[in-house]
Amino acid sequence: MLNEKLNKYSLILGSESPRRKHFLEALKLDFKTIRIDAEEVYPKYLHGNEITNYLAELKSEAYPAELADQELLITADTIVRCNGQILGKPTDLDEAKSMLRFMSGHIHEVITSVCLRTNEKMKVFSDTTDVHFKELTDEEINYYVETYSPLDKAGAYGIQEWIGYIGVLKIEGSFFTVMGFPVHKFYKEMMEF
Amino acid sequence: MLNEKLNKYSLILGSESPRRKHFLEALKLDFKTIRIDAEEVYPKYLHGNEITNYLAELKSEAYPAELADQELLITADTIVRCNGQILGKPTDLDEAKSMLRFMSGHIHEVITSVCLRTNEKMKVFSDTTDVHFKELTDEEINYYVETYSPLDKAGAYGIQEWIGYIGVLKIEGSFFTVMGFPVHKFYKEMMEF
Repeated sequence: MLNEKLNKYSLILGSESPRRKHFLEALKLDFKTIRIDAEEVYPKYLHGNEITNYLAELKSEAYPAELADQELLITADTIVRCNGQILGKPTDLDEAKSMLRFMSGHIHEVITSVCLRTNEKMKVFSDTTDVHFKELTDEEINYYVETYSPLDKAGAYGIQEWIGYIGVLKIEGSFFTVMGFPVHKFYKEMMEF
Repeated sequence: MLNEKLNKYSLILGSESPRRKHFLEALKLDFKTIRIDAEEVYPKYLHGNEITNYLAELKSEAYPAELADQELLITADTIVRCNGQILGKPTDLDEAKSMLRFMSGHIHEVITSVCLRTNEKMKVFSDTTDVHFKELTDEEINYYVETYSPLDKAGAYGIQEWIGYIGVLKIEGSFFTVMGFPVHKFYKEMMEF
């Protein structure tokens, strides 16, 4: 199993996302969590998973120390792309509502990249899932935004929350990628790392 | 919102599945839970969602009393179809392992039906999701079956558990239908009931 395979590493999760912590815990991994401050700015010529790959690596490089011999740093980034526009985390509740209105009745992509890095090697990989939202009413959008915590989430929603229950007609891809961590690919990459 | 719309009903969930209870709670619904004993046998000429529609209705009709005027009974059934075979709940851990070996590396369908019934009307609806499993190793299958509780789950796995994290490459449809409750369709049907 993965936890035996990774015994030799001391794992560091460079993300304070409770969803990402949950996935590492579910894989029975021991790890510590640190906050990494990186300004999430990327060159304009990047598209799709080039953006999340860039930002996952940027966060990895913003780790505030040299990695020790046995340390393995995990960072990740998630964005939403809808009708050609890239949506990150909303800055306030009004922006959260307008993001949800923008995605209502449409398909959007959720793209998540993960960067694995030791002081010897680095691997970046990504995964994309299509999400089909129903037509959301203003009442539904307002209720969700005012009752839940959309501000720490790319695209202003959590698929594992109320709006994901009532609003998502179908997805194509991994549900966990939408939650911010493509855990099936993480498992595979870690087994081969 | 749905809880206001359904104020007039006294909801009864005819299922002891903790996943189904969770979805009704997440929709902020008040309900009571009862166990319904129905032998899950269906005519051989039924296929796909005809089977789950039949069994969801069978469970509804096995409710051990007349429904009172304001009562609304919710029952559901889930099956897995893989390579033309129907998989229900495994009877023991050996059957759970052989079901998972059977699905390993293949696509299967998870079909869930829900029956809504009052003493005046009844509605049955279903939803289907395709699930793509990676090639699971015997070590992975044995670890999952011996560590988790596959016996109360159609197809011997929970997608929200370890094996869903490491083993599911992608799905097409609703994640919640795979968990045993197509909550997006339930919400829509209840709003119109």
